[in-house]
Amino acid sequence: MSDHIVSSYDTDLQNLRRSIAEMGGIGEKMMADAANALVRRDATLAQSVIAADSRLDGLQREIEERAILLIAKRQPMAVDLRETISAIRVSGDLERIGDLAKNIAKRVVAISDQPQPQKVVVGVQHMSELVQEQLKDVLDAYATQDVTVALDVWARDGGIDALYTSLFRELLTYMMEDPRNISFCTHLLFCAKNVERIGDHTTNIAETIHYLVTGETLPTDRPKNDRSSFATVAPQPEA
Amino acid sequence: MSDHIVSSYDTDLQNLRRSIAEMGGIGEKMMADAANALVRRDATLAQSVIAADSRLDGLQREIEERAILLIAKRQPMAVDLRETISAIRVSGDLERIGDLAKNIAKRVVAISDQPQPQKVVVGVQHMSELVQEQLKDVLDAYATQDVTVALDVWARDGGIDALYTSLFRELLTYMMEDPRNISFCTHLLFCAKNVERIGDHTTNIAETIHYLVTGETLPTDRPKNDRSSFATVAPQPEA
Repeated sequence: MSDHIVSSYDTDLQNLRRSIAEMGGIGEKMMADAANALVRRDATLAQSVIAADSRLDGLQREIEERAILLIAKRQPMAVDLRETISAIRVSGDLERIGDLAKNIAKRVVAISDQPQPQKVVVGVQHMSELVQEQLKDVLDAYATQDVTVALDVWARDGGIDALYTSLFRELLTYMMEDPRNISFCTHLLFCAKNVERIGDHTTNIAETIHYLVTGETLPTDRPKNDRSSFATVAPQPEA
Repeated sequence: MSDHIVSSYDTDLQNLRRSIAEMGGIGEKMMADAANALVRRDATLAQSVIAADSRLDGLQREIEERAILLIAKRQPMAVDLRETISAIRVSGDLERIGDLAKNIAKRVVAISDQPQPQKVVVGVQHMSELVQEQLKDVLDAYATQDVTVALDVWARDGGIDALYTSLFRELLTYMMEDPRNISFCTHLLFCAKNVERIGDHTTNIAETIHYLVTGETLPTDRPKNDRSSFATVAPQPEA
């Protein structure tokens, strides 16, 4: 293989990495903005999150096409093949993260005129900050191919799932206390669920980093602490 | 290229098609069983849905690995390349459909001892039947590469989104009427959301069929009728 071909191949991989980094930056910003819009009831900021999503969708399609072309044209082996596959996977996760942030933003618009017990927003905000940290760490780990940091993100997701389950119960309780909270808290429940799912995508990225660096696939049965699907809250006895 | 290589390549593609069909069958059954378990409050059936999901996860990984290997080894062109890429995409959607059906099943287990106004379950059941039909049609369209049927599925998803939005409002209203409905209706809301998302994945598959057959990508801005992210319901004045 001539140097020319090798260097052009390296350029292709570099470009993939750059596009993933761009997607990561947009995804992080969308998530942070969506969370801030929720806390501040800022419908304008929420609209900007909704508008940002199409760029992420476009980048994902582009990365997927370029990666497939790369595999077909250059037949990469070993770590180069894994990096190309990883680019496809990570761009898919980042695209979904954008969708979820956009959905939070849409709900911010819906509830901006509803009475909002600030106390319950704080729980979602706290969860969201943890997930933003996860996303930042996993994107850094991807850029530096650091499997230790990736595994740390992977392990920490259990804490976020547990937080979500307790938030789920808390929100049900608020709804039972006062029916005026129901519309707002329902949207907040879906926001919290979206944040939890963004957390799941960060662990997917962590799994991809592990595969990229080691060539091994992590077990699928990561212990999940999201018990919210099984959670119910008994209504208070009539006053 | 020798006949031997060509025929082995055809075998690889055939095997991919067979695995996708197997995934489709499992996904359809999981969805139907999850919906039936919800209507009949059948926790045993729900458990069987939860158990079925790992087979779907395993198949998806297998298909992805085999497809990538195929691209690297055989460098398929034109429609063969598109079919290999489509196999990766469709298996991803079917894996997500399994996850969503499994999540419905988990919620059936959670609410099996809750008081359940049967009336509200009927709405989710109706929506679920429409989505099952979509899933069946799109899997048939994939097997026969029928782009007309695929486009029909793609267009029909708007009706399901509209149904979901009206169900969302209805469930909020039940919750406001009686706090004893809140736990149950919240889980039902998430079930309905999961059904709606399964509908989204059937339209993804329809888009993939269009790409597979025509080589063209459908516009991303399919008109969505899911307005539930923007929906709120005002509580009734105190009686």
